[in-house]
Formats: sequence, C-alpha cells, structure tokens
Amino acid sequence: MTQRPAPGPADLVITGCTALVHDPAERVGFAEDAAIVVRDGVITDVTTAAAAADLDAAERLDARGQAALPGLINCHTHAPMVALRGIAEDLPVEEWFNDHVWPIESNLEARDVELGARLACAELIRGGVTTFADHYFAMDTVADVVAETGLRALLGQAYFSSQGPEGREASLDFALRRAGAADGRVTTCLAPHAPYTVDDADLAATAGLARDHGLLVHLHAAESRAQSLHSIARHGLTPIEVLRRAGLLDVDVLIAHGTGILDRDTAALRAATGRVAVASAPRGYLKFAWGPTPLRLLADLGIPVGLATDGAASNNSLDVWESMALTALVQKSATGDPRWLTSRQALHHATLQSARAVGLGERIGSLAPGRRADIVLVDLTGPHTQPVHDLAATLVHSARSGDVRTTIVDGRVLMRDRELLTVDVPAVTRELAQRLPALVERGHGRRIQEYDA
Amino acid sequence: MTQRPAPGPADLVITGCTALVHDPAERVGFAEDAAIVVRDGVITDVTTAAAAADLDAAERLDARGQAALPGLINCHTHAPMVALRGIAEDLPVEEWFNDHVWPIESNLEARDVELGARLACAELIRGGVTTFADHYFAMDTVADVVAETGLRALLGQAYFSSQGPEGREASLDFALRRAGAADGRVTTCLAPHAPYTVDDADLAATAGLARDHGLLVHLHAAESRAQSLHSIARHGLTPIEVLRRAGLLDVDVLIAHGTGILDRDTAALRAATGRVAVASAPRGYLKFAWGPTPLRLLADLGIPVGLATDGAASNNSLDVWESMALTALVQKSATGDPRWLTSRQALHHATLQSARAVGLGERIGSLAPGRRADIVLVDLTGPHTQPVHDLAATLVHSARSGDVRTTIVDGRVLMRDRELLTVDVPAVTRELAQRLPALVERGHGRRIQEYDA
Repeated sequence: MTQRPAPGPADLVITGCTALVHDPAERVGFAEDAAIVVRDGVITDVTTAAAAADLDAAERLDARGQAALPGLINCHTHAPMVALRGIAEDLPVEEWFNDHVWPIESNLEARDVELGARLACAELIRGGVTTFADHYFAMDTVADVVAETGLRALLGQAYFSSQGPEGREASLDFALRRAGAADGRVTTCLAPHAPYTVDDADLAATAGLARDHGLLVHLHAAESRAQSLHSIARHGLTPIEVLRRAGLLDVDVLIAHGTGILDRDTAALRAATGRVAVASAPRGYLKFAWGPTPLRLLADLGIPVGLATDGAASNNSLDVWESMALTALVQKSATGDPRWLTSRQALHHATLQSARAVGLGERIGSLAPGRRADIVLVDLTGPHTQPVHDLAATLVHSARSGDVRTTIVDGRVLMRDRELLTVDVPAVTRELAQRLPALVERGHGRRIQEYDA
Repeated sequence: MTQRPAPGPADLVITGCTALVHDPAERVGFAEDAAIVVRDGVITDVTTAAAAADLDAAERLDARGQAALPGLINCHTHAPMVALRGIAEDLPVEEWFNDHVWPIESNLEARDVELGARLACAELIRGGVTTFADHYFAMDTVADVVAETGLRALLGQAYFSSQGPEGREASLDFALRRAGAADGRVTTCLAPHAPYTVDDADLAATAGLARDHGLLVHLHAAESRAQSLHSIARHGLTPIEVLRRAGLLDVDVLIAHGTGILDRDTAALRAATGRVAVASAPRGYLKFAWGPTPLRLLADLGIPVGLATDGAASNNSLDVWESMALTALVQKSATGDPRWLTSRQALHHATLQSARAVGLGERIGSLAPGRRADIVLVDLTGPHTQPVHDLAATLVHSARSGDVRTTIVDGRVLMRDRELLTVDVPAVTRELAQRLPALVERGHGRRIQEYDA
C-alpha cells in the first residue's frame, strides 16, 4: 500500500486480533497481534497492534483472543423464506415445491417478505455474514430492509416465463432503480428463476439486457444431476448448454447450485466469455439427496465457487459458516480424497471466491487496504476452539457461526458482543407468528409455478 | 406413572419449557408448557407447568422459550485428544495415525490426559452433552475429572496386544475398581483397541472377561470399508466376523464406527446373543473420505446406533449436536432418499438409541419419571430457530450446540445460561499451552502402535 500522511483520526481501529490475510498469490495466512484501521467505511491499513497503539481513533475495539475475518458472503439465498423454515421436511424436491412451497408462496404479501427479510438479516448478522445474494419477490421491500439493517446485498427480483414479459421487465426495473441503494451497499442483478421455468427466448432476452445494462444475472441451473439428465432427454442439451445457447455464459452470471454440472459441460464453460461463478449450498444438497457441486472440476476451469445456504425453507438455516465446513467435508467424501479441500481452500472459497461470485471481487472478501470494511470478529477462547494448532482448521472445523461476536459492515458495527444493534427480533417474530396461519394456508389449491424438471 | 403422596419439597423444578418426550412406542413428541420435577438426581414427574406451579422446590428454573431434551450422549470419543485438535489435518487415516497421532501419544503423560479431559468436559457440557463414552489411556485420571466436572461417563482403558497381557489386565483392573465411581455416574467397560491391533486370543480372552464380570466391551471395528476388505483379504473374515468368532457378539458390545459393516455381516449380527450397538461419528467419516455407517441396515437388524464424535484430533470437535444433524443429512444423501432419517428419527438416535449404546438404556435417554435427571435446556428464541413450524426439524436442522443454555446431570446444574460452573477453562488452556511443545514433539521416532489395517 502507498504511504500517505495520516488523514486525521480513524473511525475505527480493531486491535490485538489475529487477522486472516491473503498473500499476493491469494494464499490464506494469518497476521498475529494485528490491527485493522477503518476510515469512511474502508479498510485503510492492516498493521501491527503496536503500530496502531497511538493512532487517533473515534472507536477502538480490543479484539485479543479473537480472529478477524472478512465478513462471510451468502452467495445464494431467498432470505424472506426463513418464514417457512421447517414447513416441508424430509421430502424430495418435487413435492417440496409443488405441494408446499409454491402453493404457500401464492399467499405471499409484501409484509411477509419484509418480516422474513428482517428476521433473515438478524440471523445473517449473528452468523457473521455481511453480504448476501438474494433471489426472491417483492425485492424493493428487501432493499429497504437491507438499508435499515446495515447489511450489504446483491438483490434480484425473481421471474418465471409464466408471468409473461412483465416478470422480466419488473426484474430489470428493480435492478436499474435500486442499484447503489443503501449508500452503495445494494447492488442489483437480473434474476430469471431457472432454465426449467424460464424459456429460451426469455433467457436470451435476459442475456441481452444484462449486456446492455452491464448487469449480472443470478439464476438457478443444473441444480441436480437428475435435472441435467432430464434436460438432455427433453432438449438434447444440459442446463449449462442451454445457458450458453442463450448467451448467458457471455455475461456475468451467478449459477446457483450446479450439482448437476456434468463433465460434458466443460466445453460450454471453457467457451464462456463472461465471468461465470457458481454458488454452492451443500447442506440442502445432502437433505434433498443430490450430489455435491463439482468443485474440483470448477477449480480446474478457474470458475470461482462461492458459499451459500439457499433459503431456510430447504436448508433450515442461513449459516454460511456451516456451509464452509460442509464444503470441506463433503468434497473430501465425494472425491474420496482427504487431502482435497483443505481448510485454507475452504477459507479461500469463503472469502475471495465468494466475493467474486457476487460481483464484488474488488470491493470485499479480503482484509486489505482499499476494501470495504466488512469484518467479523470470532472468539477463539471457547473450550471447543482450544488449543489452536492450525488456525485455518480451527476456523473451518472447530469454530461455529455462534462464535462470531462482532459483525461490521462498511465500518459500522451491526452486532457487538452478540448483541444485535439493527434488528428487533422479538418484534419481528411476534408479528410473523400472527401472519403465519394465512401464509401457510394451502386449501386454495393455487401455486405460483409448477416443478417439472 | 403411579400417584404417590408428595415426598417433601423437590430439589429442582423446570417450568414452562417444551419437553421432548417419548410415547410408549418410543415415538418422539413434545409436551408444551411442561414442568420437570427432580428429586435426588432423578426425574420424578413430567407434568404441566400449571400442575407444578405450587410445588415446593429448592430451586426453580424458568425455561419459557426453551426446549428441554434428555442430555446428549457422546457414544464414542477420546476426550483427552482435544489437546491434539487440528494437529494433523487433511490426511488419510494411515498417515494421521502413523506419522502424527501415535508418535505424539508416545509422549503422553497423565497430566496431559487430565488437562485434555478437563477441557473436553467443558466442551461437552457447553454442547449439551451429559454422558460420554471414553476410550483412552490413563483412565483413572479421566474418572477423577468426571467426578470433578459432574458429567456421566462410560470409561474404558484402551489396550493393544503389543502391550502383552498387561494391557488387558490393566483394562479389567480399571473397570472393576472404578465402576460406580463419582456417585454412580461412572460406569466402566473393557476397551480393546480394535481387531487390527488386538489379536484373536486377546479378543477371545476379553469376551471371557466381559462374560465373567458382566462388563460391556467398547472397541473400534469395521471402521472403514477398506479396513473390512483388508480383513477379508488377510483373514478371510470381516472385522465383524472376527468379533463373532472371538465371542464378542455374545456379550454387550459397543462398536465404534462400523462404516465398514458389509451386507455379509448381517449373518454374524443376526446370530449375536449379546446386546450389540454401534457408535457413529459422521463428521470424521466425511473428513477421512470414509462412507457412512449403514444405519438402514442396522435399523433392520434392530441394532441401536448412538451418536458420537470420535476424538477431536480427527473430528475437530466434540459437538454431538452436529453429529445428530450430520447423521440425518448424510443418511439422506447416502441412501438417495430424502424421506429417510427424519428429524424424529435423528432425535431417537440422540436419545434412547444412544442411551442403549452406552449400556444405560434404562437410566438415561428420556425425560420420564424414574430416569436420571440429565437434562439440557435449549434456547429457541434466536433468529435462526424462528419461526417453529416443526420443532423436531428446528432442533435437528436449525438449532446448534451453542443454543444449549443450561446443562444438568443427576439434577445438578453444570452450566447455567452458558456459564460453566465446574471447569475453569482459562486455567486449563494456559497450562495445556505450556505442555504442548513437549507433547507434540515427534523427533524421537517412537510410536505407540502401527496402523496397518
């Protein structure tokens, strides 16, 4: 970093922590007894506690015994679906969608989305997540909740072709109107649902809009191997090949799940001219009995894979820390190779790869000068994280989301010592409980969409 | 339960919780706004909060907003190995044993075991575990720590045939001397290491001792499929068949891991006349790239499968709550059936099946009159556990070990509102840190045993 004269007092100095840092080759390492200096929402220095001892600062956080990490990033979720956590359990995905979730979502009102989003933001902040990529309905409401709770988010208004062109137009309208909202913490994207619910013409039109407006596209594709095989049987193409034909691999695209990405998809992925990324939410794949996202294949292709949780109606939580641990565990198991997906690899997924996946590869994902000050402090003094022989392993395999004590976004403290500062959880759960009977009613026989993929 | 005149004031009444209960068919259910009455370390009543409102009690715990569960049971661990948490990462089991753990364990002193056990007990109590089955060395020390920390434990002194008959004799001596220690909270067992480190003669002698003294045998067997295939190649028998030939399936036996139990083992398991149980620690199996314990096969055979974590040197934590969630997730994935291993099944494993696995099927594992008062209270008010549509799913898939607020063993509170009352964690970690350099030194080239299975 360049050395300039000190520009007046810092807004925030965090001292005494062990800071997760990346070297120029992006290898994960740790700076002990470090200090992180924040000004105007940006990290201006990562130095030693000694060097920062006399620094003038509006606020100092003593973080001895804690690790400082870049805030976690949930690269694919449907935040408001926390309202449906546990509503449809132990079911195959077809029944989960057709008999439960899509009938219930036909009752959804903006107030449900608002309360759900607020509850989700509380959970995210408590779990050390500072950015989430949300793909849902009534997204103006979600953008307002993001503004209010202080998180960072990539937001997209979901649409199906069954809505006609209005769905796509509303998604674009939202993306253009709300880009840069919440003091720049909101970025936006186009959010077609999936190749099995959005037709080829709509996908191609979406690619055109993405190109014209410089927007990222966030969608579900190749969710499971069964889905890919079904797509081949029906169209002669895998879902990834469908995206390619529509031009969606030639824009920035975030593909949720991809557990059905097949070896034959390497050709389409290699030919991509856009920035392609995948979001992986391993808990839900185990629960639906899908396979894992093929991380080794994607690593060979240089495609970043970000961590995600999907919505809580399938995943039961928005715990990205758990996604990090499960990514390591499931990858070892699936490849039969205990040396693969080390803790440092998992931390690379959780930091720089996740930042790239949500289109913020230059702004977040690392504790480095010039990056936004999205920081979490993790307590290492609990008996379950002691002793520390290998801090990367401690973080991935021993620590839990509940060990995050402090969550900071853009230099603003959103949780301090486990206390949420921007969400009133009891008020949200109280009102949500009153609304739930109407929300979960399925007697009407409607559904917002049909699953047949 | 029979109605008798009230026998004076209760020692403890927990009121307002939602209590996990089992019906006569052992189905898991929930009693809302319940009260649990404890006298002399035993649950004497599970009733309504209203019925218990006027009950005279030395202590009352207001548990509104919390679930009361039978304390979790860690059916297979090596508690003192928390000292080696993270010491040997991302390795196949052969290297893990031969190049790291067994060389390091040749340095082990009783004081290391003591500090490790104390740290482990702190972690267990904080994770809602009230009973653990420990298989390790210097077990008198562990028994002392169990007495001091207030937990319940099934303890066995491990041995290899390489120690000569002294190993087996020391295991028996420990089992006979310390049975019933710590006011009855310590039960004991014989603890041969595994069929690949204990020879046939020693295994048969162990079976004889178990029969003669009415002792349970706790050992590793069929840890992985590779191990079973290796055993067939070497002996013409699977590890389970080796146990059968030695007579170990005709006594009470707790088999750790069993991920290598094969279809052909059903014959040996069906022929067993002892109480056979299996302990499953799914996190470590993923990490070593082993398959899962075949729970469906074992369920068909009526063999209880208890939850476990193995030691923290491989598993990185003693988090039985996580084992419960992973059991559900991994079983769905491995069988390809999202309907299998429901949350209620997972809770049955965590309660009655785990109690049976450690030989305490009549004493713990259920909140019911006559059972020991081993109870944990779990906070359900966090944003990640709200709303509650299905409490079984909330507990298994949304709650985390860190949501346990209060841990009670034999009616004694060991953790209250997350505060540990019987372990001084900073003192333990401080002394352990001083001892670690000597403990982890491997320059001597010794190891306590050779892995070749």
